Amino acid sequence: MRHINVIGIGAGDPDHLTLQAVKAFARTDVFLLLDKNDQRQELVQLRLRMIEEHGRPGHRLVQVPDAERDRATPAYREAVHDWRRRRAELVAGLIEEHIAPDGTGALLAWGDPALYDSVSAVLDEILADDPTAFSYDVIPGISSPSVLAARHRTTLTRVGRPVRITTARRLAADGFPPGAEDAVVMLDGKAAFTGIDPEGVHIHYGAYLGTPDEILVSGPLAETAEEISRLRLEAREAKGWIMDSYLLRRTED
Amino acid sequence: MRHINVIGIGAGDPDHLTLQAVKAFARTDVFLLLDKNDQRQELVQLRLRMIEEHGRPGHRLVQVPDAERDRATPAYREAVHDWRRRRAELVAGLIEEHIAPDGTGALLAWGDPALYDSVSAVLDEILADDPTAFSYDVIPGISSPSVLAARHRTTLTRVGRPVRITTARRLAADGFPPGAEDAVVMLDGKAAFTGIDPEGVHIHYGAYLGTPDEILVSGPLAETAEEISRLRLEAREAKGWIMDSYLLRRTED
Ligand SMILES: C[S@@+](CC[C@H](N)C(=O)[O-])C[C@H]1O[C@@H](n2cnc3c(N)ncnc32)[C@H](O)[C@@H]1O
Ligand SMILES: C[S@@+](CC[C@H](N)C(=O)[O-])C[C@H]1O[C@@H](n2cnc3c(N)ncnc32)[C@H](O)[C@@H]1O
Repeated sequence: MRHINVIGIGAGDPDHLTLQAVKAFARTDVFLLLDKNDQRQELVQLRLRMIEEHGRPGHRLVQVPDAERDRATPAYREAVHDWRRRRAELVAGLIEEHIAPDGTGALLAWGDPALYDSVSAVLDEILADDPTAFSYDVIPGISSPSVLAARHRTTLTRVGRPVRITTARRLAADGFPPGAEDAVVMLDGKAAFTGIDPEGVHIHYGAYLGTPDEILVSGPLAETAEEISRLRLEAREAKGWIMDSYLLRRTED
Repeated sequence: MRHINVIGIGAGDPDHLTLQAVKAFARTDVFLLLDKNDQRQELVQLRLRMIEEHGRPGHRLVQVPDAERDRATPAYREAVHDWRRRRAELVAGLIEEHIAPDGTGALLAWGDPALYDSVSAVLDEILADDPTAFSYDVIPGISSPSVLAARHRTTLTRVGRPVRITTARRLAADGFPPGAEDAVVMLDGKAAFTGIDPEGVHIHYGAYLGTPDEILVSGPLAETAEEISRLRLEAREAKGWIMDSYLLRRTED
């Protein structure tokens, strides 16, 4: 049977790769790279360098444009589910066409495949139609929240307390009222931290974590929100894209 | 100045080590190992093997019994904070005694140092007293929730939804009512999942993740809670200790 490794590649630093990931690279016959058609060419380059460095001699690389997601619709979940279906068709075709019946393929997932990533859902969707299409494994990766905490030399969880990993959409909808759990916010397109009451809230902010362009800011939200908004706009303008996340924590309770 | 690397070593598999961690091992003059005085000798052995494999020639190893935590008191947070203070004294002394003024030390943190781990808090406590005692860095690691998700080939987060990382104490206190967020439960001494209403709840359970003794069970909580309770008791009896965690998710909504 064909085998697919879903490999978590970490969140920006090529040295986030685990030894387990390196070994999986070295077992891979065919790397399937789904390119996002956007400006983030550095992220594509990072993947290519990893493959070049850790792939085995004779590996093959199949690079195709990823399915496009409908970003205009307000129906976020539906858009993501629809995108998944189209990716499933695309990936099923690539696997069948490019991986030998006893071969091993790899799909690379940014950060940790467990956080806001759809690769395993896409593979499950293919297997729901054809359970013998392939077997697959997931290799965990260093997630961006882990890097955020490490670079700020803090922890995501305080003693005996929970932490919530959430999206900017949910932060905008739920707010961050007194008593709210410490929260890591991801997928923020528009500085959602500026939309909450900053009183008593501390932020640990990070952009381009693990890369040479890394930006770190931390402090009381009331005093830093403006600076962070400015920095992220400037950075996004300069590079054409941004990838950022932050930890919110109430200090007075 | 002295420099300390806090190195996340992953959650059980020696190949969870990242390339960044491997490089930090190779830069370390002195490894400080705080041994828990308990039956988990395999975990100590795993650390020793990592040091032997990745440490540089001539590194030194300082192995001392960790400060003991008061496990009898119901005042959990206070007990943990008191424990931290005593660890801070212990670690401050070790650093001063064993690491040369321009030397590099390492402290190894299980999993990811960002989750329910006190090494950076301990170092911050030392630095609060003496800001020039050392500088330090944190190297993120593969966390047990990441491994749990990978081994079950699932994700911690569903599309557009939050996930909460929490403790068994908090699960027992908060319950898991309809509408509760998907939750990863850690630090469970007594199968807290048996104390919640299982109706409509799915569990992905993992013990000794990433190790040869790994146990994985998943299914509707109503149908699996008993089996998991039995398995974890048997395993704990056989090995003398257990380390487990699980993802709870409501299926019907
Ligand atoms: C589609 S999600 C994928 C997350 C990924 N699986 C992980 O473990 O980090 C992308 C979001 O992750 C966060 N992110 C990923 N890499 C990052 C980095 N290097 N610096 C800051 N945030 C990052 C951002 O919030 C971004 O919007
Ligand atoms: C003190 S916390 C430290 C967590 C660690 N920093 C991490 O990132 O996984 C210990 C808890 O982590 C979970 N844990 C750690 N390693 C595990 C493993 N290999 N399998 C299952 N659970 C694990 C258990 O819930 C355990 O009670």
